[in-house]
Amino acid sequence: MFIRIASAACLIMSANAAALSGDLISEDAADTARELMERGLESDTGYEIVRSLTTEVGPRLGGSGQEARARDWAVQMFTGLGFENVRIEPFEMPYWDRGDIELRIVEPFPQNLFASALGGSAATPQNGLEREIAFFDSFDSLRESPDDGALEDHIVYVNDRMISTQTGAGYGPANEKRRFAWLEAEARGAAAVIIRSVGTDSHRFPHTGMVSTPSASSVASGTHSQAVIDYLNAEHPDYTERRVRSSIPAVAVSGPDADQIERIHESGETLTAHLSVVSGWRGMRQSGNVIAEIPGRELPDEVVLIGAHLDSWDEATGAIDDGAGVGIVTGAAHLISQLPRAPRRTIRVVLFGAEEVGLLGAFAYAQQNTDDVENIVLASESDFGAGRVWSLTSGTSDEGTVFLDEAHRIIAPLGIIRGERADRSGGPDIIPLAMQGTPVFRLTQDGTDYFNLHHTPDDTFDKIDPDELAQNIAAWAAIVWLAADSNVEFRMQDE
Amino acid sequence: MFIRIASAACLIMSANAAALSGDLISEDAADTARELMERGLESDTGYEIVRSLTTEVGPRLGGSGQEARARDWAVQMFTGLGFENVRIEPFEMPYWDRGDIELRIVEPFPQNLFASALGGSAATPQNGLEREIAFFDSFDSLRESPDDGALEDHIVYVNDRMISTQTGAGYGPANEKRRFAWLEAEARGAAAVIIRSVGTDSHRFPHTGMVSTPSASSVASGTHSQAVIDYLNAEHPDYTERRVRSSIPAVAVSGPDADQIERIHESGETLTAHLSVVSGWRGMRQSGNVIAEIPGRELPDEVVLIGAHLDSWDEATGAIDDGAGVGIVTGAAHLISQLPRAPRRTIRVVLFGAEEVGLLGAFAYAQQNTDDVENIVLASESDFGAGRVWSLTSGTSDEGTVFLDEAHRIIAPLGIIRGERADRSGGPDIIPLAMQGTPVFRLTQDGTDYFNLHHTPDDTFDKIDPDELAQNIAAWAAIVWLAADSNVEFRMQDE
Repeated sequence: MFIRIASAACLIMSANAAALSGDLISEDAADTARELMERGLESDTGYEIVRSLTTEVGPRLGGSGQEARARDWAVQMFTGLGFENVRIEPFEMPYWDRGDIELRIVEPFPQNLFASALGGSAATPQNGLEREIAFFDSFDSLRESPDDGALEDHIVYVNDRMISTQTGAGYGPANEKRRFAWLEAEARGAAAVIIRSVGTDSHRFPHTGMVSTPSASSVASGTHSQAVIDYLNAEHPDYTERRVRSSIPAVAVSGPDADQIERIHESGETLTAHLSVVSGWRGMRQSGNVIAEIPGRELPDEVVLIGAHLDSWDEATGAIDDGAGVGIVTGAAHLISQLPRAPRRTIRVVLFGAEEVGLLGAFAYAQQNTDDVENIVLASESDFGAGRVWSLTSGTSDEGTVFLDEAHRIIAPLGIIRGERADRSGGPDIIPLAMQGTPVFRLTQDGTDYFNLHHTPDDTFDKIDPDELAQNIAAWAAIVWLAADSNVEFRMQDE
Repeated sequence: MFIRIASAACLIMSANAAALSGDLISEDAADTARELMERGLESDTGYEIVRSLTTEVGPRLGGSGQEARARDWAVQMFTGLGFENVRIEPFEMPYWDRGDIELRIVEPFPQNLFASALGGSAATPQNGLEREIAFFDSFDSLRESPDDGALEDHIVYVNDRMISTQTGAGYGPANEKRRFAWLEAEARGAAAVIIRSVGTDSHRFPHTGMVSTPSASSVASGTHSQAVIDYLNAEHPDYTERRVRSSIPAVAVSGPDADQIERIHESGETLTAHLSVVSGWRGMRQSGNVIAEIPGRELPDEVVLIGAHLDSWDEATGAIDDGAGVGIVTGAAHLISQLPRAPRRTIRVVLFGAEEVGLLGAFAYAQQNTDDVENIVLASESDFGAGRVWSLTSGTSDEGTVFLDEAHRIIAPLGIIRGERADRSGGPDIIPLAMQGTPVFRLTQDGTDYFNLHHTPDDTFDKIDPDELAQNIAAWAAIVWLAADSNVEFRMQDE
């Protein structure tokens, strides 16, 4: 039955595609797109935006005073570039603070390790804790381990390595341990959890990132072991959403330090570590999304929304994550604003707050703008570094798909292929909108090196190649211009 | 006159060279050298030595308890490998301790910087100090700046960049600021000095390293400005050697953090920084050189000395500096010890203590073995990382030069050229011996990437390529075997 419906859908799509092909973009619009591409490749506006954000603001953890400074910076930057309707949409959020960390091997070979608390980590007792390490080759082997008391009062260590790919496909699987190793460890009575950093480099930088809370859906989808289900039922039976915070410390060690733990483990010696973490939740703070627009000349209520996130992790200046995205979408929109006439539809740039700590700005935006969400005709976020765009993917109506096929032919000379046509991921901060049916596209970047720097102190301005950033801006300017100057219906009719 | 003498010397040398060429190495000895090379390329002994040292000892700062553990490790390692006359030659040394550091920009854009105290740095007052930064593009511009009180109570910042070369030739010039910027700053009344790290990477690791003390020779050679000479004459008039320690804090920031300071400076804003350092000299401690031998079968009193240094900086496990050297010279000597018969002369492996903090083990060795120094027929140290050997240089008698020309033809297939024949540098720890006329050779390594890691926390075992290490061991085994099994007089007659 599923197959017959799918076939029918394909037939309808093919018929539509034939009828629609070739005439959705005027020669004028295409010429303007090509002109924008040329200007994009030459412009340094995006690069200068990243320089300014990383230099003048620096680290900007969601909810921190530095993130508030970043919002002021963004308002000034947008205003200075001549954007309209520049505004901050504030929201409240729970604030987690890192503080200092100390991790060292006590036995058999005393040595300091380079570690970072994972976002959401609990603190150790004030003088730290010293425990034997229970070594797991992989998160799966931890998840499958029996709940027999063997991990009680141990520090659990999980060793999975992440593989490097152009698409970043290694991130999801490797990240399972960052998200939920604390829960598997906590359910088995462990005192703390240490993971090999989720990253692809061999430098002495730990990679931070949030732990996740068990949700009704993660419980239902079989993400957790029976030990965890039993633990949640016993300890948190009355809370169906089970948004339970970690009560044990959860930290990541750098690749070379993970190698050290692995070598000692392989030698057969019992490994004891001392860990001191002061991280914790510090009540509610204010964050906010910063918004700016180029009002449409004919259809101002129809919005092409392009975004990036303004916050960063606290240990770096957030150049590739996501200063680059801020530079790319702002730089592209700014190029369009310099055209003799505005596009038909409104272009809205949204710099989301508090992305790293749980897409908080994204959910706040969708919630605070419920009535306006269906005015968003197309949305996308740039949040995968500063590498070259190599693919255009989309998840839109048939008409939208054909339109983007045509648009792709215009940007193809930038070295971009036409990727998936049924990809509903427009970027992390677009998830809440996409869940409500907002059509999306994505200019997928080469992420081969992204996870060398991702969430480390080494994510700084010097890592950005201005030519690669300019190629991004060229592609974004062209696609956003074409979509905003069209009256194509990107939204799927059945949603 | 000079020209005539030089010409005469050339003539003599040419005549000698002709007379000596081609018959100093027997076919048997050459065959054995080739066999050693083959075994070296296949052996993992050297690599396993580095693994063991970095894993089981880890960081081992000169004078620390960790360095004492390294000596015990070395004795056990040598004994286990069957070396003879294994011994520690202890010496006393002044001990400098790093402690914690905090450096942040206060104005105009608050941000933490990644910094490391330079070895020998003084501490700040307990609560740190907050001062305006005086920016200097280069050490030369600081040295040439007037002593007009303008730097009083400022933090001096020096920005020179180091260039990356195969030979490491960029190190000396760039290192001037690490050695003496504190003195130029102190003489002008500055409160502290910060330098851009002496390194060639763009990662967020500061590069540490010792500051230098002004000596009679550095004063005489015009290394210092008139401001410094005046300052030394006023403050230290009674001490001709003027071995004056820094009384202000001296720290290095990572490349990306130096870029940040540079960008703010270029923006024209006044930059204020807060610095807290607790480093200082902590009295006398014990260090030591660890020595092992393969006694010669015919001329046991004649010694080919090969060395590396056992200590490392405290922030890393010292894999390339100088675990690699320990693995290379020990691995090479071990291969020779496995031959059916020992070479004519004794091979002595010396693992020097406290090299990083001022060649203290090297000077102690020369002093403690005064009577034995003239028995050393040839010496060399491996202390330039784990990169491939590309050149054989030497500084010996004419006979020695011709011998090494012949020896070079045997190791040339390893990709090694014959370099300088009048190079008296056998490696840092050989300096005190070379000053007394000990002949030297050097197997020069490719140092293109060496200063990416040098003196940073990132100097860890994962950075070593086992194949490149093995190529080193092959070359060392061959040259050391050939020299030790010969009766060539390497020493120059006029010394």
